[in-house]
Amino acid sequence: MDKLHFDQHISRHFNEELELIKSQMLTMGGKVETQLDDAVAALLDADSGLARDVVFREEEIDALEVQIDEDCTTLIARRQPAASDLRMVMAVSKTIRDLERIGDESKKIAKMAIILSEEGDAPRGYIEVRHIASGVRKMLHDSLDAFTRYDSDAALKTLKADDQIDLEYKSALRELITYMMEDPRSISRVMNVLWALRSLERVGDHAKNICEHTVYLVKGKDIRHGNTEALDS
Amino acid sequence: MDKLHFDQHISRHFNEELELIKSQMLTMGGKVETQLDDAVAALLDADSGLARDVVFREEEIDALEVQIDEDCTTLIARRQPAASDLRMVMAVSKTIRDLERIGDESKKIAKMAIILSEEGDAPRGYIEVRHIASGVRKMLHDSLDAFTRYDSDAALKTLKADDQIDLEYKSALRELITYMMEDPRSISRVMNVLWALRSLERVGDHAKNICEHTVYLVKGKDIRHGNTEALDS
Repeated sequence: MDKLHFDQHISRHFNEELELIKSQMLTMGGKVETQLDDAVAALLDADSGLARDVVFREEEIDALEVQIDEDCTTLIARRQPAASDLRMVMAVSKTIRDLERIGDESKKIAKMAIILSEEGDAPRGYIEVRHIASGVRKMLHDSLDAFTRYDSDAALKTLKADDQIDLEYKSALRELITYMMEDPRSISRVMNVLWALRSLERVGDHAKNICEHTVYLVKGKDIRHGNTEALDS
Repeated sequence: MDKLHFDQHISRHFNEELELIKSQMLTMGGKVETQLDDAVAALLDADSGLARDVVFREEEIDALEVQIDEDCTTLIARRQPAASDLRMVMAVSKTIRDLERIGDESKKIAKMAIILSEEGDAPRGYIEVRHIASGVRKMLHDSLDAFTRYDSDAALKTLKADDQIDLEYKSALRELITYMMEDPRSISRVMNVLWALRSLERVGDHAKNICEHTVYLVKGKDIRHGNTEALDS
């Protein structure tokens, strides 16, 4: 496992500031995980009250992103970090952007939950939602965990899970399209399930990005766009 | 119109480096505009050759993002910019991320163009695609133009266009869903048009983000998440 050392600065305050933005990011990550859990639960249980909570709480996530991003810029301006310190700030700045997007997608799922809960019975596709949500949920958790521990091996392992999620998403899509063709009256309801699935698939993409930020932080290599050869060079 | 001055540095090299990352970003922006144009044209003209070009060229966009992002980090580490210089580097770093995503969405549209061109006649929804694409295209162009000229008023005006695009997208969605219910055999084809529309709507979101980066760069205020009051404070 790779370890980074941020403990050799001349200034104790600098260390504290670096630790602070990281811990703020993890706090934000925890809140986003809750948003995703609640959005999916609201959809599956037709719980419009819980869905409204998710929509309401999104402001908090947005505010956290803006605040942490400002803290990152201030830290760069005041402390002029270099090497792994700078990578840390840049990785946090990018990760909070992905977290905010996951919050966004959770809100979209919650909005679908509100529409669907008003229309009665669960349409087709809930088994798929449950299954894909559970995979995506694990990816998000593991990606934040890998960042916390500066564990680039775990990050690389976690990001590979996204391929499986994409496959499952495509298979669910095909199945639901077939179902809509057989029962056209269901189209508008099933479309809402499709949008929720699409949001989950995108959460997987953002969790994958977080893994890439971790590898960049630990190894100093940019492995986006499948460029894992960068690790060998 | 707001103007920023980056011309008072002790080091001439510093100026040149700042100008360079900005001009690299604009080069990337130009390429991304072409990708979007070609992807939409490929869809509307059922031109699978052009669509394949778009898919093929996406690597180039990805490589540009990685390279410019690295240049931004290097510049921060070596030059330790502050105030508007630092905002410039951060704004470029964020904008190239949005540009890369627009490239991504263009590739998705191109893939839909390939599938649809293999199936013959144009399905419903092409009028809507043409219309929304033209609005999104203008937004992207205007957003890059506002950045180039450090014109936060133009950026604010441009970002408001996103509301209109969202409305048109939703209306197109409703219409296509109604159409699918009337002609269920069309579902799988019309779904591909829906995904293309969805991608266009997201391009509008990213163009809006670019406008927000410009306002941040010029005014030093973060107006994301509809927080335009920040400008009055």
